[in-house]
Amino acid sequence: MQFGHFDDASREYVITRPDTPKPWINYLGSESFFGLISNTGGGYAFYRDAKLRRLTRYRYNNIPLDSNGRYFFLRNENGEFWSTTWQPVRKDLDHYECRHGLGYTKINAEYDNIQSEVTYTVPLGETLELHRLLLRNPGKQTRKITLLSFVEFCLWDASEDDRNFQRNLSIGEVEVEDSTIYHKTEYRERRNHYAYYSVNRPINHFTTDRESFTGTYGSLEAPEALIKGQLGDQIASGWSPVASHQIELTLEPGAEESLIFVLGYAENPKDQKWDANGNLNKSQAKTAIERFATDAALEKALAVQSASWDAILAPFQLNSNDDKLDRMVNIWNPYQCMVTFNMSRSASYYESGVGRGMGFRDSNQDLLGFVHQVPARARQRILDIAATQLRDGGAFHQYQPLTKRGNADIGGDFNDDPLWLILGVGGYLRETGDFSILNESVDFENDSTLASPLLEHLDRSFQFTLNNLGPHGLPLIGRADWNDCLNLNCFSEEPGESFQTTANQEGKTAESLMIAGLFVYAAKEYASLLQYLGYDDKSNTVLNAAEDMIKTIDAHGREPEWFLRAYDYFGEKVGSPESKDGQIYIESQGWCVMAGCGHHDGFAQKALNSVSQRLGTDHGLVLQDPPHAEYQLNLGEVTSYPPGYKENGGIFCHNNPWIMIAETMLGNADKAYDYYKRIAPAFRESISEIHGQEPYVYAQMIAGKAAPRHGEAKNSWLTGTAAWNYVAVTQHILGIRPGFAGLIIEPCIPKELDTLNITRSFRDCEYHITIRPRQSDEAAGIIVNGVRSQSNEIPPQPRSTIVVEALY
Amino acid sequence: MQFGHFDDASREYVITRPDTPKPWINYLGSESFFGLISNTGGGYAFYRDAKLRRLTRYRYNNIPLDSNGRYFFLRNENGEFWSTTWQPVRKDLDHYECRHGLGYTKINAEYDNIQSEVTYTVPLGETLELHRLLLRNPGKQTRKITLLSFVEFCLWDASEDDRNFQRNLSIGEVEVEDSTIYHKTEYRERRNHYAYYSVNRPINHFTTDRESFTGTYGSLEAPEALIKGQLGDQIASGWSPVASHQIELTLEPGAEESLIFVLGYAENPKDQKWDANGNLNKSQAKTAIERFATDAALEKALAVQSASWDAILAPFQLNSNDDKLDRMVNIWNPYQCMVTFNMSRSASYYESGVGRGMGFRDSNQDLLGFVHQVPARARQRILDIAATQLRDGGAFHQYQPLTKRGNADIGGDFNDDPLWLILGVGGYLRETGDFSILNESVDFENDSTLASPLLEHLDRSFQFTLNNLGPHGLPLIGRADWNDCLNLNCFSEEPGESFQTTANQEGKTAESLMIAGLFVYAAKEYASLLQYLGYDDKSNTVLNAAEDMIKTIDAHGREPEWFLRAYDYFGEKVGSPESKDGQIYIESQGWCVMAGCGHHDGFAQKALNSVSQRLGTDHGLVLQDPPHAEYQLNLGEVTSYPPGYKENGGIFCHNNPWIMIAETMLGNADKAYDYYKRIAPAFRESISEIHGQEPYVYAQMIAGKAAPRHGEAKNSWLTGTAAWNYVAVTQHILGIRPGFAGLIIEPCIPKELDTLNITRSFRDCEYHITIRPRQSDEAAGIIVNGVRSQSNEIPPQPRSTIVVEALY
Repeated sequence: MQFGHFDDASREYVITRPDTPKPWINYLGSESFFGLISNTGGGYAFYRDAKLRRLTRYRYNNIPLDSNGRYFFLRNENGEFWSTTWQPVRKDLDHYECRHGLGYTKINAEYDNIQSEVTYTVPLGETLELHRLLLRNPGKQTRKITLLSFVEFCLWDASEDDRNFQRNLSIGEVEVEDSTIYHKTEYRERRNHYAYYSVNRPINHFTTDRESFTGTYGSLEAPEALIKGQLGDQIASGWSPVASHQIELTLEPGAEESLIFVLGYAENPKDQKWDANGNLNKSQAKTAIERFATDAALEKALAVQSASWDAILAPFQLNSNDDKLDRMVNIWNPYQCMVTFNMSRSASYYESGVGRGMGFRDSNQDLLGFVHQVPARARQRILDIAATQLRDGGAFHQYQPLTKRGNADIGGDFNDDPLWLILGVGGYLRETGDFSILNESVDFENDSTLASPLLEHLDRSFQFTLNNLGPHGLPLIGRADWNDCLNLNCFSEEPGESFQTTANQEGKTAESLMIAGLFVYAAKEYASLLQYLGYDDKSNTVLNAAEDMIKTIDAHGREPEWFLRAYDYFGEKVGSPESKDGQIYIESQGWCVMAGCGHHDGFAQKALNSVSQRLGTDHGLVLQDPPHAEYQLNLGEVTSYPPGYKENGGIFCHNNPWIMIAETMLGNADKAYDYYKRIAPAFRESISEIHGQEPYVYAQMIAGKAAPRHGEAKNSWLTGTAAWNYVAVTQHILGIRPGFAGLIIEPCIPKELDTLNITRSFRDCEYHITIRPRQSDEAAGIIVNGVRSQSNEIPPQPRSTIVVEALY
Repeated sequence: MQFGHFDDASREYVITRPDTPKPWINYLGSESFFGLISNTGGGYAFYRDAKLRRLTRYRYNNIPLDSNGRYFFLRNENGEFWSTTWQPVRKDLDHYECRHGLGYTKINAEYDNIQSEVTYTVPLGETLELHRLLLRNPGKQTRKITLLSFVEFCLWDASEDDRNFQRNLSIGEVEVEDSTIYHKTEYRERRNHYAYYSVNRPINHFTTDRESFTGTYGSLEAPEALIKGQLGDQIASGWSPVASHQIELTLEPGAEESLIFVLGYAENPKDQKWDANGNLNKSQAKTAIERFATDAALEKALAVQSASWDAILAPFQLNSNDDKLDRMVNIWNPYQCMVTFNMSRSASYYESGVGRGMGFRDSNQDLLGFVHQVPARARQRILDIAATQLRDGGAFHQYQPLTKRGNADIGGDFNDDPLWLILGVGGYLRETGDFSILNESVDFENDSTLASPLLEHLDRSFQFTLNNLGPHGLPLIGRADWNDCLNLNCFSEEPGESFQTTANQEGKTAESLMIAGLFVYAAKEYASLLQYLGYDDKSNTVLNAAEDMIKTIDAHGREPEWFLRAYDYFGEKVGSPESKDGQIYIESQGWCVMAGCGHHDGFAQKALNSVSQRLGTDHGLVLQDPPHAEYQLNLGEVTSYPPGYKENGGIFCHNNPWIMIAETMLGNADKAYDYYKRIAPAFRESISEIHGQEPYVYAQMIAGKAAPRHGEAKNSWLTGTAAWNYVAVTQHILGIRPGFAGLIIEPCIPKELDTLNITRSFRDCEYHITIRPRQSDEAAGIIVNGVRSQSNEIPPQPRSTIVVEALY
């Protein structure tokens, strides 16, 4: 069952009924001002930091679901009322349509013969949202409509906002001038910033006091002021400041009215906080409001944004015989990659935005799917991340985006972390050829006295694993590897205790096969780079270390039918048929095969066959099988989840593409693509009633076969799944992969796909690539500008177009 | 305007309309299990710790206000529905009445000729709430009614519960057996406890899945299942577990049905978590449910509770010509004192219960109003608090009730803290005569190697002030004194930074007159104790120090018309007519006069006159005048509030009784009582529409004269106001004050009060006290058992009754 459809030409997902199984959301903004917005107008806005500079209040996991947003209420001549976004009034509309596009959302509604369209967007370069409301009277009679806008302000710090009521309920302050409501709580003291909500025409009334809007026990479903049809011009003093404009509209038959609302953020210099009368200095807001006073300005902002997306998406465009694949590759997967790059894991409908910083591991992986979009931003991110690396090559597991400093509360000892830096930097170098970054002087531990060239950081990352090997010569796991929930050195018996940061066992025994595979893969990447740079000896040393690790994996990491997952604190096996639960884990199968283990003797294929048999479901590959039925002290959080959910037998989508990539390495195109389709959201659109989450972006998890709600997705949007699936499909299935010297063409195409046409911009060169099955009289291979190529790595020709044919 | 009335005979406040200006709440439980409940059934329950063991989910500051509780929905034959507590359906009821009593709440409703009465209580000694629902059919026709119960479970840690959705939405688990729904999220791992919601009869259906109850976008106002009239027997798997029973009732004409619901908490031994089938071991729940299966059991629990309150309230009972005074003194003020003792500042409708621990200062003050109720609990509290004292006599500002350890994050350096210990211990000794506590060995810094007798703790408290004097010989203020917001050593420029814990200036200059007065007051208390114990020399030394401090105050703490408040970091005056704002502060007026300063030369009276003129309003005394118009780096948080609110010109009720006491010391009975009546909630009942908060308990603050909402109260229930007003009215206005050797009778009675009769149980002796104006032929004085007494301190005669007449 579907709740809408894709409009590929407009790059939009069109939702045709408001009661989606969960709120289906979109992100506005991509620089310093962001908004989350659902298909019914829910969500919130913030400036840079979802925790510290939240503009509007949102209530997670509320009843009703998805409460609070930027709402417009309409009231007709008889006092009947509805909202232009269905929520919060939830009146049955005569027409409803939501279009989530790239950086904007449009919601259309019709009720009582009044048509409305709200467009929400954050213009590039601005710290504001525009809400343009169009109202039309398609009927034959003059209509008198009362319009009330509504946003509820957050008192800036989203965490304190729903905690410290003793203070918060006394500090709310606003000013109102003309049609603009200014929110200035705490501006009187240490804040130099304020928010405002404005509309580009005179207003009849306003209120800024929540209770005056809703009534004491009133709801947003039926606010008292709306029932009355009259706002009372209240100036909030404490409690909960809101902004609501009242505008009386007369719509002649056939007429259309346009209203542009601006929800903005401004900072004043400390010495210019106040005007001559001791009021808020509003000059910045006024200028910004003026800039967007006309429809032409709004249309231009949308056009600029659209052109920006044209440029961002242009580097990889596919034309295939499968619409679903095309829309994932061309539009929605890269769009999600941009959002994960911007947000890391901070603010979604499933991440409250008040918790964690940027992950070292997360951000390096997010880069892999983003780097070709805006390389300059990727470059800065790499330098920021690398500066939090510890001097021994380890890494702070998280860093704070505002301070760009490592988070000491969480610390390090997630032993996979440093290796991801090699892959992140490798991805950047392959895409851009900007080897100058390797000479950039970068702090260790954010300490400039420890600064070294970035290349040295890669070396310490590489050495870190070798310096932290366990009894079998495999990498020690530390607090956890990629699977944050596999906690082999934390024996936690206290409810609520962190499984990660309260490690209480010596970490000298537990080893990870996942890190072992990752190490080999990263070492090969590092060796290739060194070789490319001309450091042949060093490159060989690194390669030898990788080969040694493969031998160690072969010796100590093989079970009869698959790769072992780990050795625990006691040296006992994890992910072995000898285990009661969790006999086979996915991560080591993916990484050991990606590392090249077992390719020569069929063991890799055997392991992947086991994955298929043991972990495969119609909805994707579960993380392990069987899930752990009981909590196990020696395994940690992974066993804390009910079977079938999250890391305990859930389909944790992030790791599925590793298996896809592994399958392509063994040439199993159909298998790889089959796995791809099982979790790719566009392919799951038709089972939206089961999947639940948005059909245009990946979710972190789909409930596994052991779960009562098998197939139901959770935690959409902010997941490393986005980047890895993009890598898997573009670089390994379609096989268009940047190399250090040129673009590598190595497709692994499933039978169901016909001829594929791809345009790929790479280092200022445009590749027009056709991938097709060879005719019976043709040899497989690569033809460049009509000439057979010996190599599948095709160097760019700046400011030129290269025509490539890949026959398979 | 009133929203109800007092029923003194029943010790109840009766609310007669549901739409009170704010939720008016009550507390259930007084030992280890607690519930907060509003007049419309809102609120939540927890076991011991409001943060870590929250049973049910509540949403603070929500729209609609006061969302979530223990609700009962009724649905008639036509599908019309309502709730027995008005919320959450909020249908206009034909009858509504809420009775908040001591430890229980009863809510009556009538709609569609069906009468309901719900009684909520926590029986003594139990870890559960009882919800008894009576349904009556007063009509002449048989009625078929569908009943749905509803609670939403919190996933235990109330702080994580609305933060960590990435995890929380996947972990919810329940079991259902017979009529009981068991909530066992995380029981599979490290938790050994579970919750349950049961009813004492068979059920027709149930659900445990919130979305199945409300519908995807449904509300509690109109839940989908209620509209349908049918629950679907869903077993929650993740998302949000709830408990709802469906019971089909047939009510014959005149019939009454009683249903007893039990919402409980149980812990299992670690080795008995599971039954033979691998299910939750439910034996404890079953036993508890069985215990309360009958109305007789419930009635008995209520009777036991009532008798317990008889005993708790008996020690002080007043009979006067003013009902309002009687109900404050006899019922509501002591009730609030019990609640503040139990809760400190942790869980109210204005304290989210996830923040802070117990305050050193707070708890010592709370003791003063509670000690006569359950002295054994007061004794334990004193020992707990004292053990967190620092070895230099300073104190951890807060400690955690679960661990009973000082909170290192917040630390010490609130320089008034240690002096409150002297007053707290003094209050305990005066009430009980249990001087053995002084020999108890008590840790410093929770370190048993530093343990010393409690008396030594008092000495270090005393010495701490003398060891921390500033340039004028006045006490250094540290991070703050009683006024947490007067931060003279923290110059904070960063938004959101704590004003208290980020002290960044050397604390060697800023001095507090409030601590100076408090020091003298506490030193006199300490000296009296020492003298009573026979340590005359030491007592004199202490008294001399107090006298010296009075001289210092006289020399450096007097402005022309009142006492100075402080010297700031630069040595500049705070609370002086030379200042632009904040020319006069209340705290130093109260404490310096209470200390005895300026009694001899009329300066004390002058200061109190200034209080009256500058700080007086119809709604109480504001904290300072004028309020600070601008944020001042050198004063801190006090200047961060909008003028008229909180510590910046609000009526901060906690300090008003200090002025009342000071007035009684100067013999100004009418003035003291006038101040008492301005803020005492029963006296403000008639302006409930302005006051807003409960008319039966004090609020922390009433908006001051500079505030747009002057007279509106905030933050009811958890405030030191409760204890201090109780002390002011009982010990200083009525003047019945425990001494070390006996009960002191020193009344200061306003003209408007006639003869007063008081029974006071004190150290196993009952005093029947009559206080009355003397006749023209009588001398003022005290008559004990018919005989004129030289002393006004009357020693107890154990197991006897003493008849006292006090003539004034």
